[in-house]
Amino acid sequence: MRIVLDGMGSDNHPLPEVKAAVSAASLFGDEILLVGDQAQLQPLLEKENSANAPVRIVHAPEVFKMTEKISGSALRNEDNSMGVGMDLIKSGEADALITAGNTGGAMAIALSRLGRIAGVKRPALSALFPVKGGYCVVTDIGANTECKPEYLVQFAVMGAVYAEKVLGKQSPRIGLLSNGEEAGKGNQLVKDTFPKLEQSGLNFVGNIEGKELFGGEVDVAVMDGFTGNVLLKSSEAVAKLMVDKLREALMSSPRTKVGALLAKPAFKILNKALDPAEVGAVPLLGVDGLVFVAHGRSNAHALVSAIRIARQAVEAGVIEALRSSIAEELSGKN
Amino acid sequence: MRIVLDGMGSDNHPLPEVKAAVSAASLFGDEILLVGDQAQLQPLLEKENSANAPVRIVHAPEVFKMTEKISGSALRNEDNSMGVGMDLIKSGEADALITAGNTGGAMAIALSRLGRIAGVKRPALSALFPVKGGYCVVTDIGANTECKPEYLVQFAVMGAVYAEKVLGKQSPRIGLLSNGEEAGKGNQLVKDTFPKLEQSGLNFVGNIEGKELFGGEVDVAVMDGFTGNVLLKSSEAVAKLMVDKLREALMSSPRTKVGALLAKPAFKILNKALDPAEVGAVPLLGVDGLVFVAHGRSNAHALVSAIRIARQAVEAGVIEALRSSIAEELSGKN
Repeated sequence: MRIVLDGMGSDNHPLPEVKAAVSAASLFGDEILLVGDQAQLQPLLEKENSANAPVRIVHAPEVFKMTEKISGSALRNEDNSMGVGMDLIKSGEADALITAGNTGGAMAIALSRLGRIAGVKRPALSALFPVKGGYCVVTDIGANTECKPEYLVQFAVMGAVYAEKVLGKQSPRIGLLSNGEEAGKGNQLVKDTFPKLEQSGLNFVGNIEGKELFGGEVDVAVMDGFTGNVLLKSSEAVAKLMVDKLREALMSSPRTKVGALLAKPAFKILNKALDPAEVGAVPLLGVDGLVFVAHGRSNAHALVSAIRIARQAVEAGVIEALRSSIAEELSGKN
Repeated sequence: MRIVLDGMGSDNHPLPEVKAAVSAASLFGDEILLVGDQAQLQPLLEKENSANAPVRIVHAPEVFKMTEKISGSALRNEDNSMGVGMDLIKSGEADALITAGNTGGAMAIALSRLGRIAGVKRPALSALFPVKGGYCVVTDIGANTECKPEYLVQFAVMGAVYAEKVLGKQSPRIGLLSNGEEAGKGNQLVKDTFPKLEQSGLNFVGNIEGKELFGGEVDVAVMDGFTGNVLLKSSEAVAKLMVDKLREALMSSPRTKVGALLAKPAFKILNKALDPAEVGAVPLLGVDGLVFVAHGRSNAHALVSAIRIARQAVEAGVIEALRSSIAEELSGKN
């Protein structure tokens, strides 16, 4: 197996990427292709890679910046590290790519370089949310702000493949996020999507709310990208607010300060349970190649987690399974 | 001032309502009208009201049930406690009503009994979310799953009045919830609403995400009712998940158990900071009369909080301010 790591993606690139490439190559024993500006990467790699782990630099002179607009010219001017990296997937030289760069840019470049899996209407971004007892695949979290029912059905199909292959769920339970559990609740999109999911042959459990999602009652939660993005960012913000309020409350008296000191290992467990770095990266589901986007703030540890997820997806044959599930969905309609 | 409390609203009615009516009447010194089945309410009131606080029962033979469908006949068959209570607002005998009953039912009955404030296109449900440093008015949280830009502008106008009168905010900061802070981000509804809010004369700060909302950077967050309902329920679910994970982590070793015991007062502060009972109740903004819906699980303490909020809204002249703000908004358009 060969994994491509965009060397120029994260907010603090390229050091976290160089460190992650070296760690992952040592840990997993397979070659990591580190794509980016050779002049920057080479000296760092020499310094970090004293053990000679199998990391190879592939030169790309440009960077697609975090703040960059996704324009046709930016996409065509394709010597940036994401584009060069994706060409390695396209040519079959590598099996998956991870970038901590601009998500919209990654999606646009992937669509122009790799294209869609045959039959996919709209690729989606899918996150693994920490929930009670494990994880839930939440899709779409922002690629498609306006959706049609048939897009949501495909998000469910692709989310189910991902839950099966990466989370090991048999016949994953699919929920449709709505403003009430009862059938018939929802905005027009949800109301129109519900019967299509019922007829999809998927293990559709019906409408769900936050309670069911975070309570671990489904393996895949389906929604349009606007709602999913609001859900993702609000959940992160609520978690942060709670940690802040807890910290404040713990500092409110000498007694609680001592308590906090003793309870510190518990707070570490909590942080780890909720840390996005533990989950690693968001796949672009529906693109014809395995591309994962990690958080811009990713450190080396988070990038190694992302590489682990990508390796798992390669081993489990996620792309092949997506191709056949989408083909099956389409043939079912005819 | 006179407040109406629906005696038959909460999941455990009528005892929490009777207790709350007695407490609030003692605390605030004004009469509480407790509406519901006299045969059930009278003996409980006699038992609870040994101090003779000013609580008067107004008989209503029926209950609009939590699970009831909002049909024309249910609304016309109007001897239920919500309907009888709203008639007391309509006739001017009382100034505000609180119910812990069915939210959709309360909205439908309010619309049929009290109507809308002149010029209001769609009444909205508004919740006070606990955020960093205080509260944020979030509207709509579920009354309108399909919205037009002009509805959202009115939600902003009404939310601003509520933030000013109940939270004491001068020139409240209005944010439009979107999937990115930049102008131009959003689904079609958000994109179409943005320029209208810019021209509204309100203190519109632009698009916001969960970070700004929960970070206390706006006083009013505007969104359609589908998104708001998802936001509300997901936030509650994330908070619950975190408390559960924290509890689990604290029970993981003898050391952390001792820490948890010492830190107990801090957890109480945290619970209080996030407890919906502390905020009390959700106003039906745009209905021509002050109606508040409390959580179905409300206990007496939560209902007294709701009565406190309702009193504050009466004293601050929320209805009058809503009428004049909506009239101003409409005249500004002509």
